[in-house]
Amino acid sequence: MTQAHGYAALEQGGTLKPFAFARREPGLQDIVVDIRYCGVCHTDLNAVRNILGYYAFPLVPRHEIVGKVVHIGDGVTRFQPGDWAGIGTVIDSCGSCDHCRDGLEPYCRKGATSTYGRPDRHGQMAYGGYADNYVIDERYAFRIPSGLDPASAAPLLCAGITTYSPLRRAGIGARHKVGIVGLGGLGHIAVKWAKMFGAHVTVLTTSADKAADAKRLGANDATVSTDLEAMTALNGTLDFILDTVAASHDLNDYLKLLKLGGELCLVGIPAEQPEISPLLLAAGRRSVSGSMTGGLAETEEMLELAARHRIACDVEIIAMSQINAAFERLGRGDVHYRFVIDMACDI
Amino acid sequence: MTQAHGYAALEQGGTLKPFAFARREPGLQDIVVDIRYCGVCHTDLNAVRNILGYYAFPLVPRHEIVGKVVHIGDGVTRFQPGDWAGIGTVIDSCGSCDHCRDGLEPYCRKGATSTYGRPDRHGQMAYGGYADNYVIDERYAFRIPSGLDPASAAPLLCAGITTYSPLRRAGIGARHKVGIVGLGGLGHIAVKWAKMFGAHVTVLTTSADKAADAKRLGANDATVSTDLEAMTALNGTLDFILDTVAASHDLNDYLKLLKLGGELCLVGIPAEQPEISPLLLAAGRRSVSGSMTGGLAETEEMLELAARHRIACDVEIIAMSQINAAFERLGRGDVHYRFVIDMACDI
Repeated sequence: MTQAHGYAALEQGGTLKPFAFARREPGLQDIVVDIRYCGVCHTDLNAVRNILGYYAFPLVPRHEIVGKVVHIGDGVTRFQPGDWAGIGTVIDSCGSCDHCRDGLEPYCRKGATSTYGRPDRHGQMAYGGYADNYVIDERYAFRIPSGLDPASAAPLLCAGITTYSPLRRAGIGARHKVGIVGLGGLGHIAVKWAKMFGAHVTVLTTSADKAADAKRLGANDATVSTDLEAMTALNGTLDFILDTVAASHDLNDYLKLLKLGGELCLVGIPAEQPEISPLLLAAGRRSVSGSMTGGLAETEEMLELAARHRIACDVEIIAMSQINAAFERLGRGDVHYRFVIDMACDI
Repeated sequence: MTQAHGYAALEQGGTLKPFAFARREPGLQDIVVDIRYCGVCHTDLNAVRNILGYYAFPLVPRHEIVGKVVHIGDGVTRFQPGDWAGIGTVIDSCGSCDHCRDGLEPYCRKGATSTYGRPDRHGQMAYGGYADNYVIDERYAFRIPSGLDPASAAPLLCAGITTYSPLRRAGIGARHKVGIVGLGGLGHIAVKWAKMFGAHVTVLTTSADKAADAKRLGANDATVSTDLEAMTALNGTLDFILDTVAASHDLNDYLKLLKLGGELCLVGIPAEQPEISPLLLAAGRRSVSGSMTGGLAETEEMLELAARHRIACDVEIIAMSQINAAFERLGRGDVHYRFVIDMACDI
């Protein structure tokens, strides 16, 4: 077994505390990653609260992991010790279903294995990235291109790919006007992708402060979504809206902003079921869609583009021991725009 | 002026009664159509009830008009007296906005003119097809190909194009499994289009009788949507679902049936706003869309294909004087699958 030390919620709703545990003995195709950086996200709070009853405890949260390879199995071909490696939301899948073959491993028909909180396909509990190491099949780990800062690259592995994938799939380009709803961990990187693709980008946020910061991130415009006059002026002007807000909100306010044939894509998944207006859909041939993370090949592509275009997340570095305070700040949306744990600080 | 005689609701909620009125003097680009057949639809009941407060009274309902051209203006080029002509949901639009230029006249930015119940662009009230004639700009009238039976072609001009357009736009073909929700005026013709495009078609209906009739209409399968076991067996199997039901129903029951990336398109527009599950959308990259009728060129294309493939609506012919009884039967869904008024019967 591989001994590991991390921070866990020992029971549902508990604060995070130091926790020692074992990972599997690395196999032929496995690499062992010495974790250096790990993103922190609002979904970690939800995981600890276990609202959906999905997780097992003790729970070591988190994907969005970047670290140095310190061991490779004899069958490993893509990594050498000393390489930077990244770990995203999925660490295994069947590899043989149509979705896996199509490069959509997170949508594996037999169920992809999550990075943390559930048993893996061998029946062993998967503990996440709030820890000093990770053991992973090399096929599900990502090479981190040399041009990327490892700390600010970490959140690309969930926030990054979750926003890149739907914009890419929609074919967003220079002829498009794109709206980004919410300027948080997902929204701020979504702005950067949409600009990279050449779109005209309008940020829609409830916060006047964030609206002011949107242009610094590259947005062309920002509208405070409680300003009815400004929202009305946007009616029928946008081709695509990426909605990154997980809190409940009225989708119809955003559907109105879409042009004929426009799409509103949800990546921040509210717990409540929103109501949609069939008339707004039909009268504008609009659609509401949803998307989770992207597949392995698409994530590699995103990392290459991020390196080439010098795109990374805006991060605030914290120590592992500060995680409970960071959770409190996350709870009130006080972060610009992603916490990343630097494991070297004091773990 | 052009004198006309028809049936009108004299006030909101009233029964339909004989009504004499004037249409405009035909202009240079106008044709006068001697109405022979006119479809009847559940939306006519709603129009008479004026739930949305949209209509003016007295109200002569209806589009889905087919008749003989009896007069042409001096500038008319597409019709000769004696030709069959069709009239759909829209009789005018600005002609110059991007939507009109793209052949999407019903989505005209300045507002397309409805066939009935509202003033036209000259300020004169538009009365519909429950009448003996119609005056229309030839550019908004359709030529009826010689292979089509005029009576059963009439409902193509709304029910037909409303279902044809989204299936066409989605690129439905032989590799697709398509679900049709509801087997009424729209649903029964949607089955025929989807089969014409080569798809495998599953009808989803609450009625065991209609499920039994679905195969006669060409469907490969039919499932009674209250049969939970049968519905569960369909989970994740369909590429595209066309939902033609106007009554309130749970969209999530149908979202589950979609494959990864599948689309649920609403053409029967419920008055209530349905709730949708963001998780069902995201976990399957699914979408919910909506569609109204198609444009002029697309309607012409549909009529040509209907003639070539001998596709028409299944109609039950009534006399104009039977309209109030027909409304009662429509109210309880008792029609297979579209009433069409034969004006020659007894008006």
